[in-house]
Amino acid sequence: MKHARVVYQGVVHAATEKDGWRLLLDDGQLVSPDAVTWLPPLKPLEKPRTILALGLNYADHAKELAFKAPPKEPLVFLKGERALNGHRQFTQRPADATFMHYECELAVVIGRAAKKVKRDDAYDFIAGYTAANDYAIRDYLENWYRPNLRVKNRDGATPLGPWLVDARDIPNPMNLALKTTVNGQVTQSGHTKDMIFDVPFLVEYFSSFMTLNPGDLILTGTPDGVVDCQAGDVVVTEIEGIGALMNTIS
Amino acid sequence: MKHARVVYQGVVHAATEKDGWRLLLDDGQLVSPDAVTWLPPLKPLEKPRTILALGLNYADHAKELAFKAPPKEPLVFLKGERALNGHRQFTQRPADATFMHYECELAVVIGRAAKKVKRDDAYDFIAGYTAANDYAIRDYLENWYRPNLRVKNRDGATPLGPWLVDARDIPNPMNLALKTTVNGQVTQSGHTKDMIFDVPFLVEYFSSFMTLNPGDLILTGTPDGVVDCQAGDVVVTEIEGIGALMNTIS
Repeated sequence: MKHARVVYQGVVHAATEKDGWRLLLDDGQLVSPDAVTWLPPLKPLEKPRTILALGLNYADHAKELAFKAPPKEPLVFLKGERALNGHRQFTQRPADATFMHYECELAVVIGRAAKKVKRDDAYDFIAGYTAANDYAIRDYLENWYRPNLRVKNRDGATPLGPWLVDARDIPNPMNLALKTTVNGQVTQSGHTKDMIFDVPFLVEYFSSFMTLNPGDLILTGTPDGVVDCQAGDVVVTEIEGIGALMNTIS
Repeated sequence: MKHARVVYQGVVHAATEKDGWRLLLDDGQLVSPDAVTWLPPLKPLEKPRTILALGLNYADHAKELAFKAPPKEPLVFLKGERALNGHRQFTQRPADATFMHYECELAVVIGRAAKKVKRDDAYDFIAGYTAANDYAIRDYLENWYRPNLRVKNRDGATPLGPWLVDARDIPNPMNLALKTTVNGQVTQSGHTKDMIFDVPFLVEYFSSFMTLNPGDLILTGTPDGVVDCQAGDVVVTEIEGIGALMNTIS
Protein backbone atom coordinates (compact mmCIF):
# COMPACT_ATOMS: atom_id res chain seq x y z
CA MET A 1 0.00 0.00 0.00
CA LYS A 2 1.09 3.57 -0.68
CA HIS A 3 0.70 6.09 2.14
CA ALA A 4 0.84 9.87 2.04
CA ARG A 5 0.31 12.84 4.33
CA VAL A 6 -1.44 15.80 2.77
CA VAL A 7 -3.22 19.03 3.63
CA TYR A 8 -6.71 19.27 2.13
CA GLN A 9 -8.87 22.30 2.78
CA GLY A 10 -6.71 23.32 5.70
CA VAL A 11 -6.69 19.96 7.48
CA VAL A 12 -3.82 17.46 7.67
CA HIS A 13 -4.87 13.98 6.55
CA ALA A 14 -3.27 10.57 6.32
CA ALA A 15 -4.08 9.21 2.87
CA THR A 16 -3.54 6.17 0.69
CA GLU A 17 -3.30 5.78 -3.06
CA LYS A 18 -6.54 4.80 -4.80
CA ASP A 19 -7.01 3.65 -8.43
CA GLY A 20 -3.32 4.26 -9.09
CA TRP A 21 -3.56 8.05 -8.93
CA ARG A 22 -6.19 9.46 -6.54
CA LEU A 23 -5.95 9.99 -2.81
CA LEU A 24 -8.27 8.31 -0.33
CA LEU A 25 -8.22 10.52 2.77
CA ASP A 26 -8.59 9.17 6.28
CA ASP A 27 -12.12 10.58 6.49
CA GLY A 28 -13.21 8.73 3.34
CA GLN A 29 -13.01 11.60 0.87
CA LEU A 30 -11.55 10.86 -2.57
CA VAL A 31 -9.52 13.77 -3.89
CA SER A 32 -7.25 14.65 -6.77
CA PRO A 33 -3.48 14.86 -6.18
CA ASP A 34 -3.72 18.40 -7.55
CA ALA A 35 -6.12 19.47 -4.80
CA VAL A 36 -3.80 18.85 -1.89
CA THR A 37 -0.54 20.09 -0.43
CA TRP A 38 1.84 17.18 -0.02
CA LEU A 39 3.78 16.75 3.22
CA PRO A 40 6.66 14.32 3.74
CA PRO A 41 4.95 10.89 3.85
CA LEU A 42 5.96 10.19 7.43
CA LYS A 43 3.74 9.53 10.40
CA PRO A 44 3.90 12.16 13.13
CA LEU A 45 6.09 10.77 15.88
CA GLU A 46 5.87 11.04 19.64
CA LYS A 47 9.64 11.04 19.72
CA PRO A 48 12.05 12.76 17.35
CA ARG A 49 13.52 10.83 14.48
CA THR A 50 17.16 10.53 13.47
CA ILE A 51 17.78 11.21 9.80
CA LEU A 52 20.89 9.47 8.51
CA ALA A 53 22.23 10.22 5.06
CA LEU A 54 24.94 8.59 3.00
CA GLY A 55 27.58 10.39 0.97
CA LEU A 56 29.34 8.75 -1.99
CA ASN A 57 27.39 5.49 -1.79
CA TYR A 58 27.51 4.84 -5.53
CA ALA A 59 30.95 4.28 -7.07
CA ASP A 60 30.06 6.13 -10.28
CA HIS A 61 28.96 9.19 -8.31
CA ALA A 62 32.15 9.09 -6.21
CA LYS A 63 34.10 9.03 -9.49
CA GLU A 64 32.00 11.88 -10.86
CA LEU A 65 33.00 13.91 -7.82
CA ALA A 66 36.67 13.25 -8.58
CA PHE A 67 37.25 10.57 -5.96
CA LYS A 68 39.87 8.07 -7.01
CA ALA A 69 38.46 5.33 -4.80
CA PRO A 70 35.02 4.96 -3.21
CA PRO A 71 34.84 5.02 0.61
CA LYS A 72 35.70 1.80 2.45
CA GLU A 73 33.24 2.59 5.21
CA PRO A 74 29.89 4.39 5.05
CA LEU A 75 30.33 8.16 4.86
CA VAL A 76 27.39 9.26 6.95
CA PHE A 77 25.98 12.56 8.11
CA LEU A 78 22.86 13.60 9.98
CA LYS A 79 20.11 15.88 8.79
CA GLY A 80 17.67 17.98 10.79
CA GLU A 81 13.92 17.41 10.40
CA ARG A 82 13.48 21.01 9.20
CA ALA A 83 15.42 20.13 6.07
CA LEU A 84 12.55 17.87 4.96
CA ASN A 85 10.00 19.00 2.41
CA GLY A 86 7.00 17.51 0.59
CA HIS A 87 6.13 16.50 -2.96
CA ARG A 88 5.34 19.38 -5.34
CA GLN A 89 6.92 21.92 -3.02
CA PHE A 90 9.67 24.47 -3.59
CA THR A 91 13.31 24.44 -2.59
CA GLN A 92 15.31 27.63 -2.63
CA ARG A 93 18.50 28.12 -4.60
CA PRO A 94 20.56 30.55 -2.49
CA ALA A 95 21.20 33.82 -4.27
CA ASP A 96 24.96 33.36 -4.00
CA ALA A 97 25.14 29.71 -5.09
CA THR A 98 27.10 28.75 -8.19
CA PHE A 99 26.34 25.01 -8.15
CA MET A 100 23.20 23.41 -6.72
CA HIS A 101 22.46 19.82 -7.62
CA TYR A 102 19.67 17.33 -6.92
CA GLU A 103 20.34 13.81 -5.63
CA CYS A 104 17.79 11.09 -6.33
CA GLU A 105 17.90 8.68 -3.39
CA LEU A 106 16.04 5.68 -2.03
CA ALA A 107 14.92 6.57 1.51
CA VAL A 108 14.40 3.78 4.05
CA VAL A 109 11.96 4.26 6.94
CA ILE A 110 12.63 2.17 10.04
CA GLY A 111 9.63 0.27 11.45
CA ARG A 112 10.82 -1.04 14.80
CA ALA A 113 13.69 -0.53 17.20
CA ALA A 114 16.87 -2.06 15.80
CA LYS A 115 19.94 -2.73 17.93
CA LYS A 116 22.76 -5.07 16.88
CA VAL A 117 20.72 -6.44 14.01
CA LYS A 118 22.43 -8.79 11.55
CA ARG A 119 22.07 -8.19 7.82
CA ASP A 120 20.01 -11.35 7.32
CA ASP A 121 17.36 -9.91 9.63
CA ALA A 122 17.62 -6.29 8.49
CA TYR A 123 14.48 -6.21 6.37
CA ASP A 124 12.35 -7.16 9.39
CA PHE A 125 13.08 -3.70 10.82
CA ILE A 126 12.03 -1.67 7.80
CA ALA A 127 8.54 -0.14 7.55
CA GLY A 128 8.80 1.08 3.98
CA TYR A 129 10.45 3.23 1.36
CA THR A 130 10.03 6.62 -0.20
CA ALA A 131 11.89 8.74 -2.74
CA ALA A 132 14.16 11.57 -1.63
CA ASN A 133 15.90 14.44 -3.34
CA ASP A 134 18.81 15.40 -1.15
CA TYR A 135 19.79 18.72 -2.75
CA ALA A 136 23.32 19.98 -2.22
CA ILE A 137 24.76 23.48 -2.51
CA ARG A 138 28.16 22.48 -3.77
CA ASP A 139 29.77 25.87 -3.12
CA TYR A 140 30.01 25.23 0.59
CA LEU A 141 31.49 21.76 0.49
CA GLU A 142 34.94 22.66 1.76
CA ASN A 143 35.61 19.05 2.68
CA TRP A 144 34.07 16.01 0.99
CA TYR A 145 33.99 14.09 4.20
CA ARG A 146 31.78 16.68 5.80
CA PRO A 147 28.61 17.46 3.85
CA ASN A 148 28.14 20.44 6.08
CA LEU A 149 25.04 22.34 7.09
CA ARG A 150 25.26 24.95 4.41
CA VAL A 151 25.49 22.20 1.79
CA LYS A 152 22.83 19.87 3.12
CA ASN A 153 20.71 21.25 5.91
CA ARG A 154 18.91 24.33 4.62
CA ASP A 155 15.19 24.73 5.32
CA GLY A 156 13.22 22.47 2.96
CA ALA A 157 16.31 21.27 1.08
CA THR A 158 15.29 17.61 1.14
CA PRO A 159 11.98 16.78 -0.56
CA LEU A 160 10.57 13.37 0.33
CA GLY A 161 7.62 11.45 -1.18
CA PRO A 162 5.12 11.42 -2.62
CA TRP A 163 4.42 8.00 -1.11
CA LEU A 164 5.65 5.87 1.71
CA VAL A 165 5.40 2.39 0.19
CA ASP A 166 5.03 -0.55 2.56
CA ALA A 167 8.14 -2.73 2.70
CA ARG A 168 6.08 -5.81 1.85
CA ASP A 169 5.24 -4.27 -1.53
CA ILE A 170 8.94 -3.89 -2.46
CA PRO A 171 10.32 -7.44 -2.46
CA ASN A 172 13.83 -6.29 -3.36
CA PRO A 173 14.78 -2.63 -2.75
CA MET A 174 18.24 -3.44 -4.12
CA ASN A 175 16.77 -3.95 -7.58
CA LEU A 176 15.16 -0.61 -8.43
CA ALA A 177 15.86 1.89 -11.19
CA LEU A 178 16.45 5.54 -10.19
CA LYS A 179 15.93 8.43 -12.57
CA THR A 180 16.01 12.21 -12.39
CA THR A 181 14.55 14.58 -14.95
CA VAL A 182 15.09 18.33 -15.07
CA ASN A 183 12.36 20.11 -17.03
CA GLY A 184 11.48 16.77 -18.60
CA GLN A 185 15.02 15.84 -19.72
CA VAL A 186 16.61 12.77 -18.15
CA THR A 187 19.82 13.86 -16.42
CA GLN A 188 20.44 11.04 -13.95
CA SER A 189 19.85 7.35 -14.42
CA GLY A 190 21.03 4.70 -12.00
CA HIS A 191 20.13 1.55 -10.12
CA THR A 192 19.99 0.67 -6.43
CA LYS A 193 21.94 -2.53 -7.11
CA ASP A 194 24.99 -0.29 -7.60
CA MET A 195 25.03 0.95 -4.01
CA ILE A 196 28.40 0.35 -2.35
CA PHE A 197 26.80 -0.27 1.05
CA ASP A 198 23.41 -1.89 0.54
CA VAL A 199 20.36 -1.49 2.75
CA PRO A 200 20.87 -4.64 4.88
CA PHE A 201 24.51 -3.65 5.45
CA LEU A 202 23.48 -0.14 6.55
CA VAL A 203 20.92 -1.45 9.06
CA GLU A 204 23.54 -3.83 10.48
CA TYR A 205 26.21 -1.10 10.54
CA PHE A 206 24.17 1.62 12.22
CA SER A 207 22.49 -0.70 14.70
CA SER A 208 25.90 -2.06 15.74
CA PHE A 209 26.66 1.16 17.64
CA MET A 210 23.36 3.03 18.01
CA THR A 211 19.69 2.19 18.17
CA LEU A 212 17.61 2.77 15.06
CA ASN A 213 14.08 3.68 16.09
CA PRO A 214 10.67 3.64 14.40
CA GLY A 215 10.43 6.60 12.05
CA ASP A 216 14.18 6.99 11.63
CA LEU A 217 15.22 7.58 8.04
CA ILE A 218 18.19 6.39 6.02
CA LEU A 219 18.88 8.27 2.79
CA THR A 220 21.00 5.84 0.83
CA GLY A 221 22.97 8.09 -1.53
CA THR A 222 22.78 8.94 -5.20
CA PRO A 223 24.31 7.62 -8.44
CA ASP A 224 26.17 9.81 -10.92
CA GLY A 225 24.58 12.37 -13.21
CA VAL A 226 24.21 15.42 -10.97
CA VAL A 227 24.07 18.75 -12.77
CA ASP A 228 23.70 22.36 -11.71
CA CYS A 229 20.07 23.52 -11.51
CA GLN A 230 18.56 26.99 -11.67
CA ALA A 231 15.60 28.73 -10.13
CA GLY A 232 12.48 27.70 -12.03
CA ASP A 233 13.74 24.21 -12.86
CA VAL A 234 11.26 21.40 -12.25
CA VAL A 235 13.15 18.41 -10.87
CA VAL A 236 11.56 14.95 -10.67
CA THR A 237 13.41 12.21 -8.81
CA GLU A 238 11.77 8.87 -9.52
CA ILE A 239 12.33 5.42 -8.09
CA GLU A 240 10.84 2.35 -9.72
CA GLY A 241 7.82 1.07 -7.78
CA ILE A 242 8.16 3.85 -5.19
CA GLY A 243 7.09 7.01 -6.97
CA ALA A 244 8.04 10.20 -8.76
CA LEU A 245 8.86 13.10 -6.45
CA MET A 246 8.48 16.53 -7.99
CA ASN A 247 10.17 19.70 -6.76
CA THR A 248 10.57 23.17 -8.18
CA ILE A 249 13.62 25.29 -7.47
CA SER A 250 12.70 28.78 -6.35
CA MET B 1 15.28 30.68 37.42
CA LYS B 2 16.64 27.14 37.05
CA HIS B 3 14.41 24.60 35.35
CA ALA B 4 14.68 20.82 35.28
CA ARG B 5 12.73 17.81 34.04
CA VAL B 6 12.72 14.83 36.34
CA VAL B 7 10.96 11.53 36.99
CA TYR B 8 9.61 11.22 40.53
CA GLN B 9 7.70 8.11 41.60
CA GLY B 10 7.14 7.12 38.00
CA VAL B 11 5.80 10.48 36.80
CA VAL B 12 7.59 13.05 34.62
CA HIS B 13 7.58 16.52 36.21
CA ALA B 14 8.75 19.96 35.26
CA ALA B 15 10.65 21.34 38.26
CA THR B 16 12.51 24.41 39.42
CA GLU B 17 15.35 24.86 41.86
CA LYS B 18 14.33 25.77 45.41
CA ASP B 19 16.58 26.94 48.29
CA GLY B 20 19.65 26.43 46.08
CA TRP B 21 19.44 22.64 46.13
CA ARG B 22 15.94 21.15 46.32
CA LEU B 23 13.44 20.59 43.54
CA LEU B 24 10.00 22.17 43.50
CA LEU B 25 7.88 19.92 41.30
CA ASP B 26 5.06 21.22 39.11
CA ASP B 27 2.49 19.71 41.51
CA GLY B 28 3.94 21.57 44.50
CA GLN B 29 5.93 18.74 46.04
CA LEU B 30 9.41 19.56 47.38
CA VAL B 31 11.83 16.71 46.81
CA SER B 32 15.51 15.91 47.18
CA PRO B 33 17.71 15.79 44.07
CA ASP B 34 18.61 12.27 45.15
CA ALA B 35 14.99 11.11 44.94
CA VAL B 36 14.49 11.76 41.25
CA THR B 37 15.75 10.58 37.87
CA TRP B 38 17.05 13.56 35.90
CA LEU B 39 16.06 14.00 32.26
CA PRO B 40 17.63 16.50 29.87
CA PRO B 41 16.29 19.90 31.05
CA LEU B 42 14.39 20.57 27.84
CA LYS B 43 10.71 21.13 27.39
CA PRO B 44 8.92 18.48 25.34
CA LEU B 45 8.45 19.90 21.88
CA GLU B 46 5.62 19.56 19.40
CA LYS B 47 8.18 19.66 16.63
CA PRO B 48 11.60 18.05 16.52
CA ARG B 49 14.63 20.05 17.48
CA THR B 50 17.88 20.44 15.58
CA ILE B 51 20.96 19.83 17.69
CA LEU B 52 24.00 21.67 16.40
CA ALA B 53 27.44 21.00 17.83
CA LEU B 54 30.77 22.73 17.36
CA GLY B 55 34.10 21.03 16.88
CA LEU B 56 37.42 22.73 17.69
CA ASN B 57 35.82 25.94 18.98
CA TYR B 58 38.57 26.65 21.51
CA ALA B 59 42.06 27.32 20.14
CA ASP B 60 43.78 25.49 23.01
CA HIS B 61 41.71 22.37 22.37
CA ALA B 62 42.41 22.53 18.63
CA LYS B 63 46.11 22.70 19.53
CA GLU B 64 45.73 19.80 21.97
CA LEU B 65 44.31 17.76 19.10
CA ALA B 66 47.41 18.56 17.01
CA PHE B 67 45.84 21.20 14.80
CA LYS B 68 48.37 23.81 13.69
CA ALA B 69 45.70 26.45 13.17
CA PRO B 70 42.16 26.72 14.52
CA PRO B 71 39.30 26.61 11.98
CA LYS B 72 38.48 29.82 10.11
CA GLU B 73 34.81 28.92 9.93
CA PRO B 74 32.64 27.03 12.42
CA LEU B 75 33.18 23.29 12.19
CA VAL B 76 29.67 22.07 12.83
CA PHE B 77 27.94 18.73 12.99
CA LEU B 78 24.45 17.58 13.90
CA LYS B 79 23.45 15.24 16.69
CA GLY B 80 20.38 13.04 17.02
CA GLU B 81 18.03 13.51 19.99
CA ARG B 82 18.66 9.93 21.09
CA ALA B 83 22.23 10.88 21.90
CA LEU B 84 20.98 13.09 24.76
CA ASN B 85 21.03 11.92 28.34
CA GLY B 86 20.20 13.34 31.78
CA HIS B 87 22.13 14.36 34.89
CA ARG B 88 23.36 11.50 37.08
CA GLN B 89 22.84 8.97 34.30
CA PHE B 90 25.23 6.50 32.71
CA THR B 91 27.07 6.63 29.39
CA GLN B 92 28.59 3.48 27.98
CA ARG B 93 32.23 3.11 27.05
CA PRO B 94 32.22 0.72 24.09
CA ALA B 95 34.03 -2.53 24.85
CA ASP B 96 36.47 -1.97 21.98
CA ALA B 97 37.26 1.71 22.64
CA THR B 98 40.83 2.76 23.42
CA PHE B 99 40.18 6.48 23.97
CA MET B 100 36.91 7.97 25.24
CA HIS B 101 36.95 11.55 26.42
CA TYR B 102 34.44 13.96 27.95
CA GLU B 103 33.87 17.48 26.61
CA CYS B 104 32.51 20.15 28.95
CA GLU B 105 30.42 22.52 26.84
CA LEU B 106 28.08 25.45 27.26
CA ALA B 107 24.78 24.48 25.58
CA VAL B 108 22.53 27.23 24.21
CA VAL B 109 18.77 26.66 23.95
CA ILE B 110 16.96 28.73 21.32
CA GLY B 111 13.83 30.52 22.51
CA ARG B 112 12.21 31.84 19.34
CA ALA B 113 12.51 31.38 15.58
CA ALA B 114 15.69 33.01 14.31
CA LYS B 115 16.29 33.73 10.63
CA LYS B 116 18.93 36.17 9.36
CA VAL B 117 19.54 37.51 12.85
CA LYS B 118 22.42 39.93 13.37
CA ARG B 119 24.86 39.37 16.21
CA ASP B 120 23.71 42.46 18.08
CA ASP B 121 20.23 40.93 18.35
CA ALA B 122 21.33 37.34 18.91
CA TYR B 123 20.66 37.19 22.64
CA ASP B 124 17.00 38.06 22.06
CA PHE B 125 16.56 34.61 20.52
CA ILE B 126 18.05 32.59 23.37
CA ALA B 127 15.84 30.97 26.01
CA GLY B 128 18.60 29.78 28.28
CA TYR B 129 21.68 27.71 28.92
CA THR B 130 22.59 24.33 30.28
CA ALA B 131 25.77 22.29 30.69
CA ALA B 132 26.63 19.50 28.26
CA ASN B 133 29.15 16.71 28.20
CA ASP B 134 29.63 15.79 24.56
CA TYR B 135 31.55 12.52 24.94
CA ALA B 136 33.68 11.35 22.04
CA ILE B 137 34.98 7.89 21.18
CA ARG B 138 38.24 8.99 19.64
CA ASP B 139 38.98 5.62 18.01
CA TYR B 140 36.48 6.24 15.26
CA LEU B 141 37.49 9.74 14.30
CA GLU B 142 39.02 8.93 10.95
CA ASN B 143 38.73 12.54 9.86
CA TRP B 144 38.81 15.53 12.19
CA TYR B 145 36.40 17.42 10.02
CA ARG B 146 33.78 14.77 10.43
CA PRO B 147 32.95 13.93 14.04
CA ASN B 148 31.11 10.90 12.79
CA LEU B 149 28.27 8.92 14.27
CA ARG B 150 30.42 6.34 15.96
CA VAL B 151 32.38 9.13 17.67
CA LYS B 152 29.53 11.38 18.67
CA ASN B 153 26.07 9.90 18.22
CA ARG B 154 25.83 6.81 20.37
CA ASP B 155 22.73 6.29 22.53
CA GLY B 156 22.99 8.52 25.61
CA ALA B 157 26.46 9.83 24.74
CA THR B 158 25.60 13.47 25.47
CA PRO B 159 24.48 14.23 29.03
CA LEU B 160 22.78 17.59 29.46
CA GLY B 161 21.76 19.42 32.63
CA PRO B 162 21.03 19.43 35.45
CA TRP B 163 19.39 22.81 34.92
CA LEU B 164 18.16 24.94 32.10
CA VAL B 165 18.99 28.43 33.38
CA ASP B 166 16.95 31.32 32.01
CA ALA B 167 18.96 33.59 29.71
CA ARG B 168 18.04 36.64 31.81
CA ASP B 169 19.94 35.10 34.75
CA ILE B 170 23.17 34.83 32.75
CA PRO B 171 24.05 38.41 31.79
CA ASN B 172 27.18 37.37 29.89
CA PRO B 173 27.51 33.74 28.77
CA MET B 174 30.88 34.66 27.24
CA ASN B 175 32.31 35.15 30.73
CA LEU B 176 31.88 31.79 32.43
CA ALA B 177 34.43 29.34 33.83
CA LEU B 178 34.20 25.70 32.67
CA LYS B 179 35.63 22.81 34.68
CA THR B 180 35.64 19.04 34.46
CA THR B 181 36.52 16.66 37.25
CA VAL B 182 37.08 12.93 36.92
CA ASN B 183 36.64 11.10 40.21
CA GLY B 184 37.06 14.43 41.99
CA GLN B 185 40.31 15.48 40.24
CA VAL B 186 40.20 18.56 38.03
CA THR B 187 41.23 17.53 34.52
CA GLN B 188 39.83 20.34 32.38
CA SER B 189 39.66 24.03 33.17
CA GLY B 190 38.68 26.69 30.68
CA HIS B 191 36.61 29.77 30.03
CA THR B 192 33.85 30.61 27.55
CA LYS B 193 35.64 33.87 26.68
CA ASP B 194 38.15 31.72 24.81
CA MET B 195 35.65 30.45 22.26
CA ILE B 196 36.79 31.13 18.71
CA PHE B 197 33.22 31.66 17.47
CA ASP B 198 31.18 33.18 20.27
CA VAL B 199 27.47 32.68 20.91
CA PRO B 200 26.23 35.81 19.09
CA PHE B 201 28.38 34.90 16.08
CA LEU B 202 26.98 31.37 16.01
CA VAL B 203 23.36 32.58 16.10
CA GLU B 204 24.11 35.00 13.26
CA TYR B 205 25.99 32.36 11.28
CA PHE B 206 23.43 29.55 11.54
CA SER B 207 20.43 31.81 11.03
CA SER B 208 22.03 33.22 7.87
CA PHE B 209 21.28 30.01 5.96
CA MET B 210 18.76 28.05 8.07
CA THR B 211 16.06 28.81 10.59
CA LEU B 212 16.86 28.21 14.24
CA ASN B 213 13.68 27.21 16.04
CA PRO B 214 12.52 27.17 19.67
CA GLY B 215 14.10 24.23 21.44
CA ASP B 216 17.03 23.93 19.04
CA LEU B 217 20.34 23.42 20.78
CA ILE B 218 23.83 24.70 20.09
CA LEU B 219 26.67 22.89 21.83
CA THR B 220 29.49 25.38 21.71
CA GLY B 221 32.62 23.23 21.91
CA THR B 222 35.14 22.40 24.61
CA PRO B 223 38.49 23.81 25.80
CA ASP B 224 41.62 21.69 26.17
CA GLY B 225 42.20 19.11 28.89
CA VAL B 226 40.43 16.04 27.56
CA VAL B 227 41.71 12.73 28.89
CA ASP B 228 40.79 9.09 28.38
CA CYS B 229 38.14 7.83 30.82
CA GLN B 230 37.31 4.34 31.97
CA ALA B 231 34.19 2.49 33.00
CA GLY B 232 33.33 3.46 36.57
CA ASP B 233 34.73 6.98 36.29
CA VAL B 234 32.48 9.72 37.65
CA VAL B 235 32.73 12.74 35.37
CA VAL B 236 31.38 16.15 36.41
CA THR B 237 31.26 18.93 33.80
CA GLU B 238 30.56 22.23 35.51
CA ILE B 239 29.82 25.68 34.16
CA GLU B 240 29.87 28.73 36.40
CA GLY B 241 26.34 29.89 37.18
CA ILE B 242 24.80 27.09 35.13
CA GLY B 243 25.41 23.94 37.09
CA ALA B 244 27.44 20.79 37.65
CA LEU B 245 26.43 17.88 35.43
CA MET B 246 27.38 14.45 36.72
CA ASN B 247 27.74 11.34 34.62
CA THR B 248 29.13 7.89 35.29
CA ILE B 249 30.81 5.84 32.60
CA SER B 250 29.45 2.31 32.46
